[in-house]
Amino acid sequence: MDIKKLVKPNIRSLKAYKAKEIPCRVKLDANESPYGFTILKDIKTNRYPDPEALELRKLVAKSWKVKYGNTLHGNGSDELIYYLINTFGGPVLYPVPTFSMYGIISQALNTKKIEVPLDENFDLDLKEMLKVIKAKKPKLTFLASPNNPTGNAFSVERIEKIIKASKGIVVVDEAYQDYSAKKSFLTLFNKYRNLVTLRTLSKIGLAGLRTGFMIADEEVVNEVNKVRLPFNINSLSQKAAVDGLLKKKEMSASIRSIVSERKLLFKEMRKMDGICPHPADANFILFKADNSDKIYKGLLKKKILIRDMSGAVKDCLRVTVGTPTENSAFLKALKQLL
Amino acid sequence: MDIKKLVKPNIRSLKAYKAKEIPCRVKLDANESPYGFTILKDIKTNRYPDPEALELRKLVAKSWKVKYGNTLHGNGSDELIYYLINTFGGPVLYPVPTFSMYGIISQALNTKKIEVPLDENFDLDLKEMLKVIKAKKPKLTFLASPNNPTGNAFSVERIEKIIKASKGIVVVDEAYQDYSAKKSFLTLFNKYRNLVTLRTLSKIGLAGLRTGFMIADEEVVNEVNKVRLPFNINSLSQKAAVDGLLKKKEMSASIRSIVSERKLLFKEMRKMDGICPHPADANFILFKADNSDKIYKGLLKKKILIRDMSGAVKDCLRVTVGTPTENSAFLKALKQLL
Repeated sequence: MDIKKLVKPNIRSLKAYKAKEIPCRVKLDANESPYGFTILKDIKTNRYPDPEALELRKLVAKSWKVKYGNTLHGNGSDELIYYLINTFGGPVLYPVPTFSMYGIISQALNTKKIEVPLDENFDLDLKEMLKVIKAKKPKLTFLASPNNPTGNAFSVERIEKIIKASKGIVVVDEAYQDYSAKKSFLTLFNKYRNLVTLRTLSKIGLAGLRTGFMIADEEVVNEVNKVRLPFNINSLSQKAAVDGLLKKKEMSASIRSIVSERKLLFKEMRKMDGICPHPADANFILFKADNSDKIYKGLLKKKILIRDMSGAVKDCLRVTVGTPTENSAFLKALKQLL
Repeated sequence: MDIKKLVKPNIRSLKAYKAKEIPCRVKLDANESPYGFTILKDIKTNRYPDPEALELRKLVAKSWKVKYGNTLHGNGSDELIYYLINTFGGPVLYPVPTFSMYGIISQALNTKKIEVPLDENFDLDLKEMLKVIKAKKPKLTFLASPNNPTGNAFSVERIEKIIKASKGIVVVDEAYQDYSAKKSFLTLFNKYRNLVTLRTLSKIGLAGLRTGFMIADEEVVNEVNKVRLPFNINSLSQKAAVDGLLKKKEMSASIRSIVSERKLLFKEMRKMDGICPHPADANFILFKADNSDKIYKGLLKKKILIRDMSGAVKDCLRVTVGTPTENSAFLKALKQLL
């Protein structure tokens, strides 16, 4: 597979911006102020961030058992979606309903999009997807698994068949993978050079930092890196993300707690008349409610905020798994509204 | 002037992503983790940042005597350059040499660019610029004033004539304005609806935060806002930027010190044989050196890092103004190398 051929011509001839790190004692090269402010220990606010986010990417690469050169950092994974669409162009294929940003960013970049409805279980409609891939030759396919807003992970076999059938890049967006028991695609780029996996720290306690990653073949990484703004993750987030990722025990404990709470929530919701939760592999549950609008507004009156998804999935609401106390408050309020 | 008509058709029909702030007690709507990490006081790392950067933008609007709705925030002003080019398209006109990102981002977005050389004093070549504006009708013109790497601010009258003659948007990039005695264009969008001014906190001690702003007519702001990624400035940077901007005295003092050090540096450099500094309105000085390569490498050997600009301006080097100690070290080393 010739990666270069997949890249838009204007990007193919572009060189990545290199902000070189040259060791020195007196640094007068970058038009920074010599005077900074104390915010986080060890952070020089007056200096530009590390453009390569070296420490953070090395840590991420190590935890995910890939090489540093197979990772690229984004100001949230939505920035990487922007870069991916700008690098490879369209048509962009994705199932619906899914994460809204694939469509929004495609339009912002004037890129054609093709939407294929999920099947009746919210899994990929393999037949239809393969038909579109053959007929329309999408340059990019986005598969969010676990999917938002439906909450389920797609069938691993179907994803793999789509990757195999695609002549373009297939992006498996694993934003919610930490909460799923299903197989990750993180290291499969070694087998499929057209596979990109997206990960984010936003769902595991670090949403405020805006740090997302793509994992892919080094050649794919190098092409996307050409359209990356040089200092896209600021110094504070780089440092805080490293600190956060080093708190492995704390992070694993919070993930375990959320998974076990999700199971509890699911069980309780399934008992309720007029409520139908959809199987969930993420840190949220999509559920159908006989009178979803009334329930959404009733919860809001009790100051409990969930997401109204009826625009994307008829009669459906989406609840994020919270702390045990928050979940109990939600369940209690929900029962009162039925 | 019909702003809508200036916008690319695919953006015209786009709606800005609205991440609504709904007050609540239990927040289970955004698929965040309920568990965060302590990094900066008052920052909930597990929550998404304020998509509108309300507190920061209000503070910026107040300091710059504009309305909140006339400001838009970027992950550095280079992100805003990306958004501006994506919103208005090309051809993109700018004088050369100038900040390299106008050209790099134009290419990344597959947008035609037109480069017009500066005149012999590194000021705008008004005649040529007006000719190109008339003939090629650029959708966007970028004028960095003070300009990087030349260091001088452009003639205010020439900039104003270019704005008046342009049917497209003119962006005055005032990244270095805090160090200049010349007139700012910050509030002139009230007179010229096609004027956008860019500002950044990167040159005044907060480069690590990546916070830039554009100031413009509210309709221009609303159009560019459509292509902005919703959470483009992270929580830590928003908070730190507010804290930094509130330290007005400290910030003013550092700016004053840099301006007076720049004057000193300039005076000393002008005395040196074979060194010719260019008049500077920014926090750096561009200078011509008889043997620029030897001097760059000689300084580096002494662990003093400046920027080699000979690729953009023949025989020229660029030195950022540092602390008095750093500047003395630079001057001493420079003398030794002559």
